[in-house]
Amino acid sequence: MNDFTYCLPTNFVFGKSKETETGAYVKMYGGTKVLIHYGGGSVKRSGLLDRVKASLEEEGISYVELGGVKPNPRDGLVYEGIELCRKEGVDFILAVGGGSTIDSSKAIAVGTLYQGDFWDFYAGKLPVSEALPVGAVLTIAAAGSESSTSSVITQESTLTKTSIKTTKVRPKFAIMNPGLTETLPPYQTASGATDICAHVLERYFTNTPEVEVTDRLCEAILLTMIREVPRVLEDPHNYEARANIMWAGTLAHNDTCGVGRQQDWATHHLEHTISALIDCAHGAGLAVMFPAWMKYNYKHDVARFVRLAVNVWGCEENTDDPEETALAGIACWENFFRSIGMPVRLSELGVTEAEIPKLLELLGGDDHLEGNFVVLDKKACEEIYRLAL
Amino acid sequence: MNDFTYCLPTNFVFGKSKETETGAYVKMYGGTKVLIHYGGGSVKRSGLLDRVKASLEEEGISYVELGGVKPNPRDGLVYEGIELCRKEGVDFILAVGGGSTIDSSKAIAVGTLYQGDFWDFYAGKLPVSEALPVGAVLTIAAAGSESSTSSVITQESTLTKTSIKTTKVRPKFAIMNPGLTETLPPYQTASGATDICAHVLERYFTNTPEVEVTDRLCEAILLTMIREVPRVLEDPHNYEARANIMWAGTLAHNDTCGVGRQQDWATHHLEHTISALIDCAHGAGLAVMFPAWMKYNYKHDVARFVRLAVNVWGCEENTDDPEETALAGIACWENFFRSIGMPVRLSELGVTEAEIPKLLELLGGDDHLEGNFVVLDKKACEEIYRLAL
Repeated sequence: MNDFTYCLPTNFVFGKSKETETGAYVKMYGGTKVLIHYGGGSVKRSGLLDRVKASLEEEGISYVELGGVKPNPRDGLVYEGIELCRKEGVDFILAVGGGSTIDSSKAIAVGTLYQGDFWDFYAGKLPVSEALPVGAVLTIAAAGSESSTSSVITQESTLTKTSIKTTKVRPKFAIMNPGLTETLPPYQTASGATDICAHVLERYFTNTPEVEVTDRLCEAILLTMIREVPRVLEDPHNYEARANIMWAGTLAHNDTCGVGRQQDWATHHLEHTISALIDCAHGAGLAVMFPAWMKYNYKHDVARFVRLAVNVWGCEENTDDPEETALAGIACWENFFRSIGMPVRLSELGVTEAEIPKLLELLGGDDHLEGNFVVLDKKACEEIYRLAL
Repeated sequence: MNDFTYCLPTNFVFGKSKETETGAYVKMYGGTKVLIHYGGGSVKRSGLLDRVKASLEEEGISYVELGGVKPNPRDGLVYEGIELCRKEGVDFILAVGGGSTIDSSKAIAVGTLYQGDFWDFYAGKLPVSEALPVGAVLTIAAAGSESSTSSVITQESTLTKTSIKTTKVRPKFAIMNPGLTETLPPYQTASGATDICAHVLERYFTNTPEVEVTDRLCEAILLTMIREVPRVLEDPHNYEARANIMWAGTLAHNDTCGVGRQQDWATHHLEHTISALIDCAHGAGLAVMFPAWMKYNYKHDVARFVRLAVNVWGCEENTDDPEETALAGIACWENFFRSIGMPVRLSELGVTEAEIPKLLELLGGDDHLEGNFVVLDKKACEEIYRLAL
């Protein structure tokens, strides 16, 4: 196990109707003038936005609003948010939505206090030194952004999708009512679930030896997902299954299952170029890319793939031919993603061979390397995209 | 799943030689005059105390010392610590040791700021409203006190062993170097490991339905323990196995695997009376009492015991006779505790039938009830003690 430090001070408020307590938590963390940041009309239609506003008003907290966050959130709205926050003297950013809204909120939180262009941070020009406090009312189990230190934003002009990683943007609190996810369309539910599985898999594929406890935690979260996701797709109003998925989604990305081990993250980056290019759901892109990444890399550590196949999918171990077991496990992932309505080929996303050069260009320069479990050069990335066709 | 709030702000600093960073963390959390609280001579002999002191001196932090904490820590030393802290103007309590030392430190932290008798809090007369900040340098994987909100103290005059539970005493940081546990005698290592398993089992036995994700996390920690504990007993210097156990110990008691579910805790209380009476290792008492508790209660929810047997011990499920599988799982626990050198009968601890009335008296008055999975009256508790003879 590697050395690590770990501190997760986010205050989780989990359960039915918890959004009605939002105001009290904003107050607890010092917010007096709030930007409510959200996506489309669903938070209005469902009445969620009204409940959140009522809760702020109850505490005497004033607010301004900025809607319009889209999946794969863009820099354009971030600039708008920063301007609004400065003009209105906002001191707290409240995200009401999913990962995209929370990521956009984190960018606004960072940019409002910085006199230059907030993209400087995302371009890696300088580290984040301060940010407005952020809180989240979560409406989809997926990105784990409600307690993570990261934020991914796409620059519209270049389609560059990059991220920051800093404790400064970790939400102070996360209001998590699984009931709010009951109205999600099945495709979004499944995309979110795929993202959760991918967050675990990025941690599971490691070269760090002797990480039994986090291996087991990874497997625990994956086992939960493969049990619960079909249940919510069958009955979208299954609160209990929604609750298990929602908490699994948080654990999958707050490093509960990732401390003390090298992590990979190639697949996420291979996917970011796809969703930046064609604006597909991040989870859908991951469902395509993870099986392809696995097929390309399983020989690097067959035993790890065998372990995953046996412990998560219950595959019988073929000790004479471990590669067979490893491949059986990979097939289980592909079948699982397909069974929950996800694409598992680039073609299903409408991406053809002709777009691979563009994906590779978006990935980085000629010397660009991806991943840690196996370090992939551009040629290897190209082959993985081809395997995904 | 039940509603819950969860916030774990303890800063974990995990890995080799991390004790040399103690001073920096004390400073980070505002300590200027420290009480270093510890147990016996081992922290002196090993040089740990010197390394911690050097680290404080490096940061210009002054300190006083109070050693002498014993397993099942007593109120006597707490009073002494409180007096010392007041006299010396201590503003930070640094525990260097295991659960007993950290629990004693928490009591001193609470008592120093309270003008009355600190036992008022442990007697449940009033809630804790403030405490000095506490930090921990952990030397044994067991109690989970390094990030828990609880502290258990025994009142010498009455042998009453009671606890407080308040976020005010949660350690600000926990320095966790698994290497420090390599010199523990096997019996203490095994006692600690049993305590860790028990912390998970107290959470596992629940009546809350639909808690798949925390069920799986509980199983993950137990699977880790049954793999790693025999390895450290075979080779006490197996750092990797020690590391997995140490982190599992923290996860077992910081509610990572316990949120959103009813928990039991009868077995811990049934044990507290034993260690209060005969001053045995808490873990040893748990190894005796948990199998007895299971044998008495498994019929309440055979399916849960079957799940534990199958998922953790790999027992084959007998669908015609689930009770057989449940009992096979219970036998696995008893065999496991025995295999790691723990007693599994009260007689092995020197406790006879004649002492049962005294244990019951220490447990509480005639109307006293224990547990949540099954609510036990005094008669039921007596039967469990008898099963453990």
